[in-house]
Amino acid sequence: MLRYPFLLLIHGVLASSSFVEPRKFSLVSRGTNLDGSVPTYKNPNASIEDRVTDLLPRMTVEEKVAQIIQGDIDGWMNANNPLDNTLVFNQSGLEAMMASKSGSIWAGYQMPYKKFVFALTVGQRYLMENTSLGIPAMFQSEGLHGFTNNGTTFPSPIGLAASFNPTLLSSVANIIATEAEGLGLSQIFAPVLDMSRELRWGRVEENYGEDPFLTGEMGLAYVTGLQNGARRNVTSGGSGGIRKRMASTCKHFTAYGSPINGLNLAPVVGSERDLRTIYLPAFQRACLESLAIMTAYASYDSVPMVANKHVLTDILRDEWQYPYWVTTDAGSVDLLITFHKTCDTRECAAKAVLENGLSGEMGGGSYTYLTLPDQVAAGTVNESLIDETVKAMLRTKFTLGLFESPYPYSDYLSTIRTPQSREVLLQMEEEAIILLQNNNNLLPLSRDISSVALIGPQANRVSFGDYVFFNASLNGITPLAGFQEFLSNSSSSTKINFAQGCELWSNDQSGFDEAVGAAQASDVAIVMVGTWSLDQTLLWTPGTNATTGEHVDLSDLSLVGAQRALIQAVVNTGKPTLVVFVSGKPVTEPWIKEHANAVIQQFYPGELGGLALAEIIFGAVNPSGKLPVSFPQSVGTTPDFYNMLNGARPQPPDPGTVFDNGTLKFGHEYVLGDPVPLWSFGHGLSYTTFSYSGLSVPRSIGTNDNFNVTVTVRNTGSIDGKEVVQVYLSDLVSSIVTPVQRLVGFQKVDLAAGASETVSIEVLSSQLALWNLNNEWAVEPGVFSIKIGSSDQVFAQANITVAA
Amino acid sequence: MLRYPFLLLIHGVLASSSFVEPRKFSLVSRGTNLDGSVPTYKNPNASIEDRVTDLLPRMTVEEKVAQIIQGDIDGWMNANNPLDNTLVFNQSGLEAMMASKSGSIWAGYQMPYKKFVFALTVGQRYLMENTSLGIPAMFQSEGLHGFTNNGTTFPSPIGLAASFNPTLLSSVANIIATEAEGLGLSQIFAPVLDMSRELRWGRVEENYGEDPFLTGEMGLAYVTGLQNGARRNVTSGGSGGIRKRMASTCKHFTAYGSPINGLNLAPVVGSERDLRTIYLPAFQRACLESLAIMTAYASYDSVPMVANKHVLTDILRDEWQYPYWVTTDAGSVDLLITFHKTCDTRECAAKAVLENGLSGEMGGGSYTYLTLPDQVAAGTVNESLIDETVKAMLRTKFTLGLFESPYPYSDYLSTIRTPQSREVLLQMEEEAIILLQNNNNLLPLSRDISSVALIGPQANRVSFGDYVFFNASLNGITPLAGFQEFLSNSSSSTKINFAQGCELWSNDQSGFDEAVGAAQASDVAIVMVGTWSLDQTLLWTPGTNATTGEHVDLSDLSLVGAQRALIQAVVNTGKPTLVVFVSGKPVTEPWIKEHANAVIQQFYPGELGGLALAEIIFGAVNPSGKLPVSFPQSVGTTPDFYNMLNGARPQPPDPGTVFDNGTLKFGHEYVLGDPVPLWSFGHGLSYTTFSYSGLSVPRSIGTNDNFNVTVTVRNTGSIDGKEVVQVYLSDLVSSIVTPVQRLVGFQKVDLAAGASETVSIEVLSSQLALWNLNNEWAVEPGVFSIKIGSSDQVFAQANITVAA
Repeated sequence: MLRYPFLLLIHGVLASSSFVEPRKFSLVSRGTNLDGSVPTYKNPNASIEDRVTDLLPRMTVEEKVAQIIQGDIDGWMNANNPLDNTLVFNQSGLEAMMASKSGSIWAGYQMPYKKFVFALTVGQRYLMENTSLGIPAMFQSEGLHGFTNNGTTFPSPIGLAASFNPTLLSSVANIIATEAEGLGLSQIFAPVLDMSRELRWGRVEENYGEDPFLTGEMGLAYVTGLQNGARRNVTSGGSGGIRKRMASTCKHFTAYGSPINGLNLAPVVGSERDLRTIYLPAFQRACLESLAIMTAYASYDSVPMVANKHVLTDILRDEWQYPYWVTTDAGSVDLLITFHKTCDTRECAAKAVLENGLSGEMGGGSYTYLTLPDQVAAGTVNESLIDETVKAMLRTKFTLGLFESPYPYSDYLSTIRTPQSREVLLQMEEEAIILLQNNNNLLPLSRDISSVALIGPQANRVSFGDYVFFNASLNGITPLAGFQEFLSNSSSSTKINFAQGCELWSNDQSGFDEAVGAAQASDVAIVMVGTWSLDQTLLWTPGTNATTGEHVDLSDLSLVGAQRALIQAVVNTGKPTLVVFVSGKPVTEPWIKEHANAVIQQFYPGELGGLALAEIIFGAVNPSGKLPVSFPQSVGTTPDFYNMLNGARPQPPDPGTVFDNGTLKFGHEYVLGDPVPLWSFGHGLSYTTFSYSGLSVPRSIGTNDNFNVTVTVRNTGSIDGKEVVQVYLSDLVSSIVTPVQRLVGFQKVDLAAGASETVSIEVLSSQLALWNLNNEWAVEPGVFSIKIGSSDQVFAQANITVAA
Repeated sequence: MLRYPFLLLIHGVLASSSFVEPRKFSLVSRGTNLDGSVPTYKNPNASIEDRVTDLLPRMTVEEKVAQIIQGDIDGWMNANNPLDNTLVFNQSGLEAMMASKSGSIWAGYQMPYKKFVFALTVGQRYLMENTSLGIPAMFQSEGLHGFTNNGTTFPSPIGLAASFNPTLLSSVANIIATEAEGLGLSQIFAPVLDMSRELRWGRVEENYGEDPFLTGEMGLAYVTGLQNGARRNVTSGGSGGIRKRMASTCKHFTAYGSPINGLNLAPVVGSERDLRTIYLPAFQRACLESLAIMTAYASYDSVPMVANKHVLTDILRDEWQYPYWVTTDAGSVDLLITFHKTCDTRECAAKAVLENGLSGEMGGGSYTYLTLPDQVAAGTVNESLIDETVKAMLRTKFTLGLFESPYPYSDYLSTIRTPQSREVLLQMEEEAIILLQNNNNLLPLSRDISSVALIGPQANRVSFGDYVFFNASLNGITPLAGFQEFLSNSSSSTKINFAQGCELWSNDQSGFDEAVGAAQASDVAIVMVGTWSLDQTLLWTPGTNATTGEHVDLSDLSLVGAQRALIQAVVNTGKPTLVVFVSGKPVTEPWIKEHANAVIQQFYPGELGGLALAEIIFGAVNPSGKLPVSFPQSVGTTPDFYNMLNGARPQPPDPGTVFDNGTLKFGHEYVLGDPVPLWSFGHGLSYTTFSYSGLSVPRSIGTNDNFNVTVTVRNTGSIDGKEVVQVYLSDLVSSIVTPVQRLVGFQKVDLAAGASETVSIEVLSSQLALWNLNNEWAVEPGVFSIKIGSSDQVFAQANITVAA
């Protein structure tokens, strides 16, 4: 358990670090030793701390500050035209950039690979060969669900989480790193470990769902998958024995995912207990070895996170002993002046962020950190805190082996879009799809069925989530094309009757007749609807529309425009109807749950989403995705996460209803609504059935004991399938109010029809802890209930007693 | 400024109190002294503390515990049939009740006055004459907006707050106390100082709005109006010089008004800073001299408020030195077992509430405090904490002069429903009405107009809020009757064409034709719609319906059933249309704002609401009410209070719209919605106009200086009118994120047409304070902006500098 004396810590830096006297080397000797020998910082076999300690005193204040301000390759390259392919650069721009902003350099552009590699090589070579110290830059890009400069696009993170398969996610992250590494990148701004607990927020799709535990497990899988390995030319024992090949960047640290009103950047309400139990655990689980962390834009409990000493220094640096690079988000330092109103000058903002956060400044703002040299000279800023920040950056670079391997690889094309990557992609697409409802086993459809109507504005569209670059969707296969490919590959003669029916963004119903006709002419109707996002170019272009993505926030979570009416028209034909939601967040449509025969949730897929959907619907693949987020009845019944505190819901509630014919049935919770979600966290059906038996937990453990939950799961149906064994825990009586249940373990198993497996899942003692009235973690003696099931279904249950 | 060292306080009791050795008197001498003299506790001229100190040691543990468990007159009277008038009581029931639950006794029944007085007299006489110590009980009832046993019903508290007139509210509270006092009551469970910041919650109508400052001012007005004065036979100097005639009961202490999901009793999320800045200020302002406080049901930051030592002991008792009676709410102690899950036995619950809260146990549960004598004997409960709780009760009783004046007054009828009370009632009804919109000065209507259509389900209905007793609405006048009375009194020949149009609770549109006909036949149409509640009997009766009130929570804030369609049908006639909302909370209807010519908000009125509405509409009274709560666009854009933190809203937001013809205009905040409220806190129109000039504030003050805001307000129109001068403050740069603005002063002025008045409003230094990073109140040097206007309109602005 962590123990944290709330107010007693002294403002400090890493306990293990020591302050370094600046500039004890003369300038002429900075890049070499006086005796001509190679300085320690250039020795790959020296320890990282020795290399840091050797290099820092050689740096001027200006070089230190340049190290902690983000640069941009657009300083020397034409980066704004994605089609431009000219290999020219601007020398004076290069020199100016490197003099002031060169520790990390933004390279998140869509650009032909050859030009991209040229740009990075020019920049890196300048740093290595034309500066006194030869400190390489970290080149950075995006990769929430695929390397964004034309790398493979995987499902959006909320879909990745739906797989409940950390091993598979690790493989995904490995591919993202492999595609980026060859091009010379060394930092990827992912994973996002915010949580989807305010569903109006546009960035719900970038997260791993509503649960701290699942988010932490998936986050750890991403970080290790992305980072593990070594850059070429970094040999065993290099960088002092610790090696990573890519810097993962956990973001947004922290509590960014619950903005008031669901409005992006808005303040987050919460206590120290909420911080400890909801927002920090995923970061603590996933990021202690990530080589970078990015801070959040918002304020938490009235403290802007970019200048939150309690979180960034007391907890992250002192408690967790985090040694690596921390960066702010784009433009977020200036927000202290323009938004949070805690500063009125750039000097104040720079000082507040540096001294409280020990973090660097990203671009996108006014570069307040350029004031730091003068502030050091004036004595208003403590240079030792600049030193600590630079040291964090250097640790990250030495761990990457960047001094030994700073350049792109000549064979970079060999690691992009490989057949092996496509296999991983397809498996992830399949495992991300969730079967929500399947009345009378409408699914899977037989490949011998004569005709299927494929209807709706998502049916012939590649709907990627945000954080892909311009035209990325051209790499994707639409559901219509996926169906055609699948049926063709299956030698099926099933006819697809396609009709779009309506646009996503309109109330125009002029296409309904065609859609109804397609349904009437078919054996089964599939209607594909949902939300939509745009690539990073279009998303910020005035005049475009979207319903999810960064800075695209909803006040209503139901279908937009004519979509629900289209489904009603199709259902009214009497044809068996499958509704497929393609979306970046839960869509609140109780009518559809009530009236559709089957419902599938496909969070924004990757490039093979259309094909995977066909495989699932026709039974070539058995669905195994589970909801990482609960689906409320309406925006008015949110929040609706499964791990509510005790007392959050009347047991049972007394819901009211507006019936289709307009009749009102009045209740109290709510008067005309229902707080119980349509589908809960953990839910997801299969084409086969599973039974659980032999649940075993220890009768009694001590307060510091980890323990195993053992249960046998059997595939009792006639189809092979994967099942996610989920372990939930409830603290039956506690000193403070605890959640009704919490996920504390899960494991995905693959079972042939009739097969069984005995699964043993370790639950850490820390999962039993609460943040007590003394502001400490504590496991309290007493009885805990262990449940195997989904959040709202119990397949097996047992109690475990924690002895004093 | 208060300074509160967060974690360093030791669990303690009032610093000024001392522990008393129990039972140093023998039982035979407990009610008299050994020498036959009158004991100090019976001496009205002794100090309260001396009386308490004298009495406590004379009590047995059982008597002490009986003093802190709420009794009920139904123990000796048939209290459940409101029509029963028999003057008989049950002697054994009386004795049993008084032996175990007799400190305070619930008498909140609808009962004929004669029987009611008989019941109280029998009980009180037994205590005074048949028990060893002769300790009188406090008899208790409800009075949020009128004494509930058939006293005068005033507007619901949210309407009282809309008057922005604390002096008038004090007069209202004075009437409530006067009507109750004569009947023998000494405690009223009001005011409610929760805040209406979660609009789905059913109890929004019981509060004074969304703002801590307004709530505090109105709360103080209520408390002083209710309490000030002396009971008959309590002479000057009685009770040690401090006298009050009625115990006001501030509730629900604290943070109860923001339950997650808007569900009654649900947990409240927040930090110590939120507690200090949002939830506690109104209690601190209004309740330090209230003779009682009631705790809240919910948990706050995972700590059940009934057992919240930090709030109930550390803050209330130690910091604030609150000496009086604190009680739990009905059944709330058992919730530790059944709801919060922090106890699993009655013993645990009793101990947790007593030792952390120093409060008594209300009925409605399992009477866990009956376990206390055995727990004291077993050494598991500290009797000294029972003593502290009893002492708090005794202080309240001595301050009331109850030992000297325990009985009802024989002339109780003379103080109920007097002509003077009716005058205050009518003025409050008038000042509570808010003119939200008045396009082209549709209002006031001329009394010479030939015909008016009065339409809608609220038009011929008395819609009281909750916390009135069965059939209270029979005392009220409907709008239709009010219009008829007003026009008759005005000798007007205006014809009223009434049509209900629809029910509040149905989608049935069969009455629309009649309503449309009435509109077509009239010069102007008035459509009255809204929410509805029920009296305390019906509200909890299965099968009844309501949309507001305790345990009646909404997931949608727009009009229910056919009401909006009714308005659309009337508007479509082309007749000028006034919409009147009669409701207990904001109704979210952007269509109505856009299409109605005029809009009036009448929060649930009192008995003369129908008449006051006619006076306003026909211009006999100029409207002067202001919104105590902002009106959001929809449930999906909540919360929407005016005093949001900086950074809560993009400036400006980019709203999207669904047009009437179905066209969608996409935005970002929100995609198809608008975070800017329809009408903001402080808004309210008049039939005249006001101008402001000569705003003056000090150029510079010190951190501890109160200051005056002086401004001249002139009635620049041709009609006499009242204006609420509102003073808002913004901290321009601060160490933590502060609200964009806060109300810090207001004053209602009455100005004849053309007249002006220079108003000087004192702002306390404490209003400039923030709860800083060291968990202390601090006024930070810097510039503050002072604004005269409503929350979204600026009439005059000036800066004031706080010097270090």
